[in-house]
Amino acid sequence: MRPFMNEDFLLHTDTAKTLYHDHAAKMPIIDFHCHINPAEIMENRTFENITQAWLGGDHYKWRLIRTMGVEERYITGDASDREKFQKFAETMPKCIGNPVYHWAHLELQRYFGSDLVISGDTAQDIWDLAGEKLTGDALRVRGIIAQSRVQAIGTTDDPVDDLGWHKQLKEDVTSPTVVSPTLRPDKAINIDKDGFADYIAKLADVSGVEITTRDDLKAALLTRIDFFHQMGCRASDHGLDYVAYRLIDETALEKIFQKGLRGDVVTVEEAEAFKTDLMLFFGREFARRGWVMQLHYGVQRNCNEAKFARLGPDTGFDAMGMRYCGAAIVAFLNALEKDGALPKTVLFSINPHDDAMLGTIIGCFQGGEVRGKLQHGVPWWFNDTKHGMENQLITLASVGVLGTFIGMLTDSRSFLSYARHEYFRRILCNQVGAWVEGGEYPNDRKALADLIEDISYRNAARYFGYDVLA
Amino acid sequence: MRPFMNEDFLLHTDTAKTLYHDHAAKMPIIDFHCHINPAEIMENRTFENITQAWLGGDHYKWRLIRTMGVEERYITGDASDREKFQKFAETMPKCIGNPVYHWAHLELQRYFGSDLVISGDTAQDIWDLAGEKLTGDALRVRGIIAQSRVQAIGTTDDPVDDLGWHKQLKEDVTSPTVVSPTLRPDKAINIDKDGFADYIAKLADVSGVEITTRDDLKAALLTRIDFFHQMGCRASDHGLDYVAYRLIDETALEKIFQKGLRGDVVTVEEAEAFKTDLMLFFGREFARRGWVMQLHYGVQRNCNEAKFARLGPDTGFDAMGMRYCGAAIVAFLNALEKDGALPKTVLFSINPHDDAMLGTIIGCFQGGEVRGKLQHGVPWWFNDTKHGMENQLITLASVGVLGTFIGMLTDSRSFLSYARHEYFRRILCNQVGAWVEGGEYPNDRKALADLIEDISYRNAARYFGYDVLA
Amino acid sequence: MRPFMNEDFLLHTDTAKTLYHDHAAKMPIIDFHCHINPAEIMENRTFENITQAWLGGDHYKWRLIRTMGVEERYITGDASDREKFQKFAETMPKCIGNPVYHWAHLELQRYFGSDLVISGDTAQDIWDLAGEKLTGDALRVRGIIAQSRVQAIGTTDDPVDDLGWHKQLKEDVTSPTVVSPTLRPDKAINIDKDGFADYIAKLADVSGVEITTRDDLKAALLTRIDFFHQMGCRASDHGLDYVAYRLIDETALEKIFQKGLRGDVVTVEEAEAFKTDLMLFFGREFARRGWVMQLHYGVQRNCNEAKFARLGPDTGFDAMGMRYCGAAIVAFLNALEKDGALPKTVLFSINPHDDAMLGTIIGCFQGGEVRGKLQHGVPWWFNDTKHGMENQLITLASVGVLGTFIGMLTDSRSFLSYARHEYFRRILCNQVGAWVEGGEYPNDRKALADLIEDISYRNAARYFGYDVLA
Repeated sequence: MRPFMNEDFLLHTDTAKTLYHDHAAKMPIIDFHCHINPAEIMENRTFENITQAWLGGDHYKWRLIRTMGVEERYITGDASDREKFQKFAETMPKCIGNPVYHWAHLELQRYFGSDLVISGDTAQDIWDLAGEKLTGDALRVRGIIAQSRVQAIGTTDDPVDDLGWHKQLKEDVTSPTVVSPTLRPDKAINIDKDGFADYIAKLADVSGVEITTRDDLKAALLTRIDFFHQMGCRASDHGLDYVAYRLIDETALEKIFQKGLRGDVVTVEEAEAFKTDLMLFFGREFARRGWVMQLHYGVQRNCNEAKFARLGPDTGFDAMGMRYCGAAIVAFLNALEKDGALPKTVLFSINPHDDAMLGTIIGCFQGGEVRGKLQHGVPWWFNDTKHGMENQLITLASVGVLGTFIGMLTDSRSFLSYARHEYFRRILCNQVGAWVEGGEYPNDRKALADLIEDISYRNAARYFGYDVLA
Repeated sequence: MRPFMNEDFLLHTDTAKTLYHDHAAKMPIIDFHCHINPAEIMENRTFENITQAWLGGDHYKWRLIRTMGVEERYITGDASDREKFQKFAETMPKCIGNPVYHWAHLELQRYFGSDLVISGDTAQDIWDLAGEKLTGDALRVRGIIAQSRVQAIGTTDDPVDDLGWHKQLKEDVTSPTVVSPTLRPDKAINIDKDGFADYIAKLADVSGVEITTRDDLKAALLTRIDFFHQMGCRASDHGLDYVAYRLIDETALEKIFQKGLRGDVVTVEEAEAFKTDLMLFFGREFARRGWVMQLHYGVQRNCNEAKFARLGPDTGFDAMGMRYCGAAIVAFLNALEKDGALPKTVLFSINPHDDAMLGTIIGCFQGGEVRGKLQHGVPWWFNDTKHGMENQLITLASVGVLGTFIGMLTDSRSFLSYARHEYFRRILCNQVGAWVEGGEYPNDRKALADLIEDISYRNAARYFGYDVLA
Repeated sequence: MRPFMNEDFLLHTDTAKTLYHDHAAKMPIIDFHCHINPAEIMENRTFENITQAWLGGDHYKWRLIRTMGVEERYITGDASDREKFQKFAETMPKCIGNPVYHWAHLELQRYFGSDLVISGDTAQDIWDLAGEKLTGDALRVRGIIAQSRVQAIGTTDDPVDDLGWHKQLKEDVTSPTVVSPTLRPDKAINIDKDGFADYIAKLADVSGVEITTRDDLKAALLTRIDFFHQMGCRASDHGLDYVAYRLIDETALEKIFQKGLRGDVVTVEEAEAFKTDLMLFFGREFARRGWVMQLHYGVQRNCNEAKFARLGPDTGFDAMGMRYCGAAIVAFLNALEKDGALPKTVLFSINPHDDAMLGTIIGCFQGGEVRGKLQHGVPWWFNDTKHGMENQLITLASVGVLGTFIGMLTDSRSFLSYARHEYFRRILCNQVGAWVEGGEYPNDRKALADLIEDISYRNAARYFGYDVLA
């Protein structure tokens, strides 16, 4: 029996151990997509207690606690932080096989230096030791980033954001990391969602461009793209319910936009056409600037409207959807490629049944002097599990070139979740180790070190153009 | 090499062995969903020979024999029972990797006390020894139930059923088990299938409610729900081709029902609207009474019409379908939840590609003081395989709380199939053992015993409210 | 650590080794579906260098090289063969987990007798040794076939083909193998694709039947079916974007055909109806003649139109699609079965998420005195990987009778790819070995030898009626 989560956690062969400890573990972190708040880096936030550090905003954990039949007041309600932590700790022993179980223990080991196993019985001890450690600089935000050796962070930012915190961070020579904005223009394309007209008004205001036509809209967005570019942005991110591709003529497009501006309801087809046009516009502009375009698609959001009404978005009421988007993805990429305007692109589906398909779609658009120009992103959200990551690595390797993979990101709101890079790297090294020790790949240390270091770190650094490589 | 199907069958680690032998194997059985005939318990049926016990009505086995190119007369036709058994026995050696291979040998070992390997060569020996054993009380229906330690059985019953056998069993103090009816009102919602009008007439007759409107229909169904409740029913089951969710107004709904009453053909959309309304009605009534609602969806039934015409339904001509039902499932659960009327619900899809999605959908509706209120059911029918069960356990664990899972059911027409609970428990213990011995979960005997015993037995007993727990 | 790709490559248990070396490896090869050019057998083609043998037409390899960001001129362009080989060799070390990595090294070992590991560093050595070996008879086409012990080859042929090379091969007593044509009438059903009218004109010309109606079309096709039958053809193959099933009346069908004849654009629904009718016609004719009908469906072809315009079809710009075809497949098979006209049929989906469904669909149409009459084909194209083959074997075994499986084919344009049969057989033996050594199937050498030899060789020989069995 292997000890519980010791230094060789998830590393089942000697090759896996060597690759991890001598190579993967030594690489810095490029966290190219996350949802952290740059203000918390600038201000070097301190966490008062472990509930704030672990349970604040973490809907992964909230869902688990709810599944235990715990009342909402102990999750997002007015119970005390200590009571909330108790309910979480009592939930953990039932969560065998869940990544949260591993993430929480990795964080406890790495950041709090504790080997305790989380349960109702150990909750008080953990609460106490965490409370003590959290007072120190090492567990304030900058301390966490520094000890995690995070070289670069890609945040997620609305085009109307003034990037004030990014500016301050850029100017702060003591900042432990490069913090780059990522353009997330979802509100500008979501003509079918509440608040579109208000958003356009805000965009006009921020950009200084009066917006009465689609040309105006694009002009306004261009000013923001250029501003983001100046601020170091080299990537966009898009959250799409599903990928649509619907072409209609300019006149019809303009009419749809006018409906949106008036706050009128648009049809599904109209929304698809409007979004297609704008996504093509974005793609071309990103290609021109050498940016990376990230597409996240397929989530069914806010499934439980009663809870959404009470708790708002991103509180644990989203689910995997299942939509056939393959033809639209192909049509979209193809249209850009035909114009010589396909940017570096990363595809993320919420549903793992798309994985094999995505692996083959990217293969149709590779080339053009960028290694791994098209990427099938690391398993996202519900798939960000040991099983999900193993399957994606195998699928990606089976239909493409694993050595070009840009690897892991946290997609997280929490600074402690850099441990997920470790989790990914262990799984990667274990899979590669299994291939090598199983006789499926030569035991060539140089080739293997390159593979592991590239996927853990260098590929992402190169792909996003972070100026960090020695 | 491990011996063939010995006492440590499927248990690949010491932890797995201990968990199975010391915990899982000691738990009684709650078989909360099956298709056995309660009359056979009441009358304590005797089987004349192993063909009757094994091959009568078992379309899993029939499909395998057909695949060998065997004539139908040796399967469901007029060949002798001995001849039929021979064909089955000759088929078995080709069925490596099929669960029927394991089920049959488990049943042979447990109920007939034989370690023979089934083949054409051993068919006569098995026939003889089974013939001898089947004459004894131990292999009459009550003997099988008693030796299998089945504490509770959930049958599947039409609302018009008088539950006469259930009544007799309730009054029979010698009955070896609790036998509860389960309401399966498919015929009342299938307005698009033959016989709807006749069925409604029968329902009116049985309930004593004249049915001329939808209100009447619901009133009639309520009398049956109440009657079933009195008879100990605490669960419903629904076989849906696919899950639809389509809202229309009351007047239109009433018109559709009138078409159905007249035996007129309804459109797909009309049927969907009628079913949606009735399923919402059922959901609310079940929630009110604390029942469990089980949804089985996605089968393509009677694919081979020529064979269906000759042999009727449930004879081995059904297949997995593949329909996108995720949005409709979410809409349905959400509508009930908004009214505070979501009952405990178990979702079963015939297609394993839904598993990851279902695991995330249930996570959106957990809470409300029931542990694991929403459940992703154990792999069903074609998925009820070693591989299918391993994948579902891993998926369920990856996106939810495995410790709240209500576990196994037989879904069977055969009393010998209680061996499938053993099969499931071995797979469960092996998976949990692999996590523990792999260093992914602590070797905490108390926590592990709780997990295994809960999933094997206690969770289902609590969830369905069976009054069996000590 | 196991040595890299030694004689026990992929064989992880003693049982696996025995089954492979003593049984699987000794079986000849039936390559019932491939895309090789029969002229190259007749003329006993010589390859000038390893680039011609390995990289000519091999879009699997081209995609990998493109993913490395290599310029197209080094892939399909005007770079020298030596330069192209260098780029390929440099790509290989990054392709851990990809089947091309294994195929290439298997081919290097078996046909070139070299244990070198392919990389930029070894490229020159491999180039040199291959150049030397390729001059010998052993590596001319007939030599490769003979040393691979290929007993039968099924090519892929258009109905208008005169099968001249097949005729010569039939008459050539020195031919090392049986070469049978396979009817691939895609162009006759693709009324929605460019060139349909021209194709029909050509078919009329070749068949000597004037084609002005659908009856004429069928009459012309019948002459070709009969001619192919005379030439030894016993199978068809169909490449379908997706499987449709749409019935309309004769008059409407005739109108659609007239549109096609005039070169008019037909609607999607019209094309589906036309194709359905013709596929039913083919099915009936194949059943009558005892042929095997192979259906390959689901590819998104020519996804990258810019590259397609430059390089043409089959150059590496196709992807997995994802369409729900289950209901149409069932309807199609059912319609033939109802008329007693269902031929032996092999179903291949490009997307592995169909596997479980296909396994259950075939189970609905088995019987009729043919063992494994309906087949779920071996993983195709992008799925033709270790992981894909393992999954398909497990799925097939879980829902059907593995012992009736007809097994592997190359689907290849290259004569060196017979090594893929070895790859499949190793994976098969390893899986069966795992079941046996895991205690899930008895260690019965006779039963196991039958299983392995049947799936490796005999089942396919019997199923296609090749007159090769002793």
